[in-house]
Amino acid sequence: MIIVMKSHAGPKDIEAVVQRVEELGYKVHLSRGEARTIIGVIGADEYLIQNSTFEVMDGVERTMRVMQPYKLASRDFSAADTVINVNGVQIGGRKIVVMAGPCSVESREMILETARAVKAAGATVLRGGAFKPRSSPYSFQGLGEEGLKHLAEAREQTGLPIITEVMSPEDIALVGDYTDIFQVGARNTQNYSLLKALGKQQKPVFLKRGISGTIQELLMSAEYILSGGNMQVMVCERGIRTYETATRNTFDINAIPVLKETCHLPVIADPAHGTGMWQYVGAVAKAAVAAGADGLMLEVHPDPARAWSDGAQSLTFERFGRLMEELRLVAQAVGREI
Amino acid sequence: MIIVMKSHAGPKDIEAVVQRVEELGYKVHLSRGEARTIIGVIGADEYLIQNSTFEVMDGVERTMRVMQPYKLASRDFSAADTVINVNGVQIGGRKIVVMAGPCSVESREMILETARAVKAAGATVLRGGAFKPRSSPYSFQGLGEEGLKHLAEAREQTGLPIITEVMSPEDIALVGDYTDIFQVGARNTQNYSLLKALGKQQKPVFLKRGISGTIQELLMSAEYILSGGNMQVMVCERGIRTYETATRNTFDINAIPVLKETCHLPVIADPAHGTGMWQYVGAVAKAAVAAGADGLMLEVHPDPARAWSDGAQSLTFERFGRLMEELRLVAQAVGREI
Amino acid sequence: MIIVMKSHAGPKDIEAVVQRVEELGYKVHLSRGEARTIIGVIGADEYLIQNSTFEVMDGVERTMRVMQPYKLASRDFSAADTVINVNGVQIGGRKIVVMAGPCSVESREMILETARAVKAAGATVLRGGAFKPRSSPYSFQGLGEEGLKHLAEAREQTGLPIITEVMSPEDIALVGDYTDIFQVGARNTQNYSLLKALGKQQKPVFLKRGISGTIQELLMSAEYILSGGNMQVMVCERGIRTYETATRNTFDINAIPVLKETCHLPVIADPAHGTGMWQYVGAVAKAAVAAGADGLMLEVHPDPARAWSDGAQSLTFERFGRLMEELRLVAQAVGREI
Amino acid sequence: MIIVMKSHAGPKDIEAVVQRVEELGYKVHLSRGEARTIIGVIGADEYLIQNSTFEVMDGVERTMRVMQPYKLASRDFSAADTVINVNGVQIGGRKIVVMAGPCSVESREMILETARAVKAAGATVLRGGAFKPRSSPYSFQGLGEEGLKHLAEAREQTGLPIITEVMSPEDIALVGDYTDIFQVGARNTQNYSLLKALGKQQKPVFLKRGISGTIQELLMSAEYILSGGNMQVMVCERGIRTYETATRNTFDINAIPVLKETCHLPVIADPAHGTGMWQYVGAVAKAAVAAGADGLMLEVHPDPARAWSDGAQSLTFERFGRLMEELRLVAQAVGREI
Repeated sequence: MIIVMKSHAGPKDIEAVVQRVEELGYKVHLSRGEARTIIGVIGADEYLIQNSTFEVMDGVERTMRVMQPYKLASRDFSAADTVINVNGVQIGGRKIVVMAGPCSVESREMILETARAVKAAGATVLRGGAFKPRSSPYSFQGLGEEGLKHLAEAREQTGLPIITEVMSPEDIALVGDYTDIFQVGARNTQNYSLLKALGKQQKPVFLKRGISGTIQELLMSAEYILSGGNMQVMVCERGIRTYETATRNTFDINAIPVLKETCHLPVIADPAHGTGMWQYVGAVAKAAVAAGADGLMLEVHPDPARAWSDGAQSLTFERFGRLMEELRLVAQAVGREI
Repeated sequence: MIIVMKSHAGPKDIEAVVQRVEELGYKVHLSRGEARTIIGVIGADEYLIQNSTFEVMDGVERTMRVMQPYKLASRDFSAADTVINVNGVQIGGRKIVVMAGPCSVESREMILETARAVKAAGATVLRGGAFKPRSSPYSFQGLGEEGLKHLAEAREQTGLPIITEVMSPEDIALVGDYTDIFQVGARNTQNYSLLKALGKQQKPVFLKRGISGTIQELLMSAEYILSGGNMQVMVCERGIRTYETATRNTFDINAIPVLKETCHLPVIADPAHGTGMWQYVGAVAKAAVAAGADGLMLEVHPDPARAWSDGAQSLTFERFGRLMEELRLVAQAVGREI
Repeated sequence: MIIVMKSHAGPKDIEAVVQRVEELGYKVHLSRGEARTIIGVIGADEYLIQNSTFEVMDGVERTMRVMQPYKLASRDFSAADTVINVNGVQIGGRKIVVMAGPCSVESREMILETARAVKAAGATVLRGGAFKPRSSPYSFQGLGEEGLKHLAEAREQTGLPIITEVMSPEDIALVGDYTDIFQVGARNTQNYSLLKALGKQQKPVFLKRGISGTIQELLMSAEYILSGGNMQVMVCERGIRTYETATRNTFDINAIPVLKETCHLPVIADPAHGTGMWQYVGAVAKAAVAAGADGLMLEVHPDPARAWSDGAQSLTFERFGRLMEELRLVAQAVGREI
Repeated sequence: MIIVMKSHAGPKDIEAVVQRVEELGYKVHLSRGEARTIIGVIGADEYLIQNSTFEVMDGVERTMRVMQPYKLASRDFSAADTVINVNGVQIGGRKIVVMAGPCSVESREMILETARAVKAAGATVLRGGAFKPRSSPYSFQGLGEEGLKHLAEAREQTGLPIITEVMSPEDIALVGDYTDIFQVGARNTQNYSLLKALGKQQKPVFLKRGISGTIQELLMSAEYILSGGNMQVMVCERGIRTYETATRNTFDINAIPVLKETCHLPVIADPAHGTGMWQYVGAVAKAAVAAGADGLMLEVHPDPARAWSDGAQSLTFERFGRLMEELRLVAQAVGREI
């Protein structure tokens, strides 16, 4: 970290900062310029320091972090891409993983039918929500354990591993009895009680970027899970909130190459939430693959107009099948396969 | 709700929408214009319908909600301002409540000293964090129950009711043994498991707006608690995330009059998080009072440069004392008192 | 337009709105529901009405536009894609156009060298700035007419048509003497004096989305030019301003399919400004092509580290050449060519 | 400026950066740490350097500016508040200036009537638009010179100095024949051709923050005018674009104390555009005064429901009169007067 002192900072101010740096166990590198003094904070654990520790001190103009505030998630920690194996499906390798299924599990028949359809079209993981975070308390909140049982049956019938959301530390044991991958939704990206508890689990975690989370915050949240001991984390770009109202969210395509450069975790794209409208899902799914995503999460429903949630961004079986064909061509064009 | 059909929508499309509206238990009001057909959805419970239910149907151009998607939080439900009584302190009445104290409880002495200082300056509620949501897993996470005990002792010594954050449904029982008001932080505004559990509590809940939450989302989250049976909810504007980097957040002053017009709950302002820099806290605190806020939450610390968290936005005792003097004048100017 | 009256709106309020609608030359369609009255405004020219005309009237709750506020730019006006011919280069057809060159023309040699290099790699239009909008008055402001002359010479030598920015109505005549396409930059998207003057020109206009412009505002600005009589307009997504700081802007990939669906104008992508960092330009360029863009604008410089402006987002000749190879594959994968 | 080299940057990379710094006429301060080398750029004119100059060089990790990129606008340049005298009205002093009038001048009678009304209520400057930047080419574009003549007549009758918008360098001579203050609107904050031309004028300039402009960009745009030689500039916070849709813009109340600390120019608040709804104008106007604004710009119309533009955010004479009473009390509470 670099600390820039104000031009009128006195020797006392500088001494106080130097002392504080040393108290925290770091070495100081002092540069007295004509106009200003600059204090370098030296030590291997810079990611442990907070900017605000110094910004509040008298005479400090501003601070700049040299290293990222996370460690285990960074490329410096692991140069090689992390590949996560889920029942034989590799996530983060050359082959792009497609996780598909309905927003919510609505019934046994519906999830079995969808599982067969997405498998036939080439999906390799089945998604489906049993515990649903809904903005209205009056909306359908998910089938709960019954939904988890239907998902497990769909896995048995199709061989597809399953992913489903967990909303609270209390539900981890129950959800963990059924799911292959824990999903953390965008409203829980900074639910630290949940992240800490998932850090103690053995199963992979699929972590969505917050509704207006920064890329750095996403990686800090991944760090919570990684530092708890669970190294199987994948991160997901799902669109951010902006002023634009033509779409539900703004899919941040830049985040794909930024995440691939900055961290070693598999990077998944969610064009359904990223656009909020099925008409645009295909274009953005192809874009995400072209930009280097390691996987896609797509919402597929037998009859979107009757979906209990997120129908507007769900694909029919037919549209999903056609999109998979198009995605195969784009994947090949960038040296990947689906 | 109003459903506008596309100009080329056929009789079949229209019939399908009409049928779906009726299935859901609403009446239909059909207007066939020259260019388009418009379908009104009539019924007392419009707040229960989701726009997406219809937007996904063939031939539908767009939909518009006529009523808000919440009910119990709205002025239509209760025209009179809700006043919450916490151990004799009225929140939501003519007198503006000032909740002050450190970001985190750091030690017994520190919270007792701060409690006495803020009381002397005129604060009526003591704040202090024992469970802290921190963006880094390596940062101080709060003293936990020990912090709660110190807060309780500070209440005993000063008579000030206390407010502290609860981060997880699992912690409600413990935190509830000590606190007078449950605080829900900006990262948990849409933690629905937590909100549902708080809806079953008897103690008041202080609900912060999400980091980039809309005003409507804040009220929908309040609705979760209200619909659970706990009618003692106050809402807090704490700044939103924007592109501006001169301050940590952008305090949305507009939200004060909007919330006062739209809902009946007490509206509190948090200028510490709203600016992130103590230099600007005073100006924004005065602005919030001038705009009609029912209360302020302020961060006060005996030595902000040594604070374990949020030092940059904390006031010293002296600055807090002077600000309280200024706030009294502004409160009088708008017909309130502190 | 649909006008929803408040539940307590009286007959006088309704009568006043009806009268106002009729004054403006529209027909009224009145729906009296149990709870509310809804007033439909009927007429072919709905795009001429402003919502605020009615929102300010007593008893009006809200309004909803049924048609877009633009006409000539919309797909309703022209279902077929507009193809613009610039000296034999088709913009908006099956072949994707690549406009490449330096941010600023820095010297005669530099632009000639760059023109030859980008042509060799497959670019079909040469870009280069002679009048530069710079955020600092102390930064290089462009070579002015001298730069235009160098561009014209580069056109002569390579046969590539040229595009360059015009910043003010006063400069149109001069810039028009040299350029083949007028470029309007992101800071001038709503410079209506400029747009009106360009509506009177015979040459095509390349219109960038504003720094935080909505897609609708972009099309309204296009409408200014189209309604002036110049039907050769292409629109450009160049990234929007968000809270994310990992990149200079957030490239709005959703805007590509939204624009293709909503308007008939050629849609160009500018990944250089969309990311601000050359490391990410390639990924986002490929994404834009995969999502359906009709063209790309790319910044190419012989020595980006010595560029007088925008070096950080400029490609070297070598990187540009390699990217063109990759883009060809992606274009083929989505049924286009470069 | 401070340049942080990457941990793996070699001596060649460092040498190249050092050479470039010296080429640009600055001195170098080199700090070789264990992990990284840090290069300080020393010289009085740091505001002239751009970060991107170095960010694009091999081996550079990031850069941090120590001084602001503007000079004449900063408090370092002038510690004392600038006070601008317009026909005897002081702007920037202890007395808060209120600029009031209609969005557009609609007729002679209307502006004369409004001028008398706002003067009676205590306004000290008359506003009114003759050239209007409208998002639709089909909307009323202002009366042009006829409007300017009506404004001048209103000045004659009331003695109030006038302020009106100028949209293009071509119009400066004409507008300057009539107005006392040139207004630059939010869509032209970065219209550098216009700013440069205004830098050559003798009359004060009222400069609005861009629709999503940063505070720094606002001051850079002020710097354009100041560096041209016109030192009479006032800056205006008018709300920024965010994701919140409950109001038209989000008034950035933080900007008031930030601007007062950072620059010496008078700071005006525009709560009409800052909220977009007359219901909230009063609350935000009071807030702006409480936060330290030097003036207010308010929209007042004899019959807002019939206004040709911005009716929704305009006050009636009666509401304006009442608000002025309330503002007087708030101004007194913060040691100012109106």
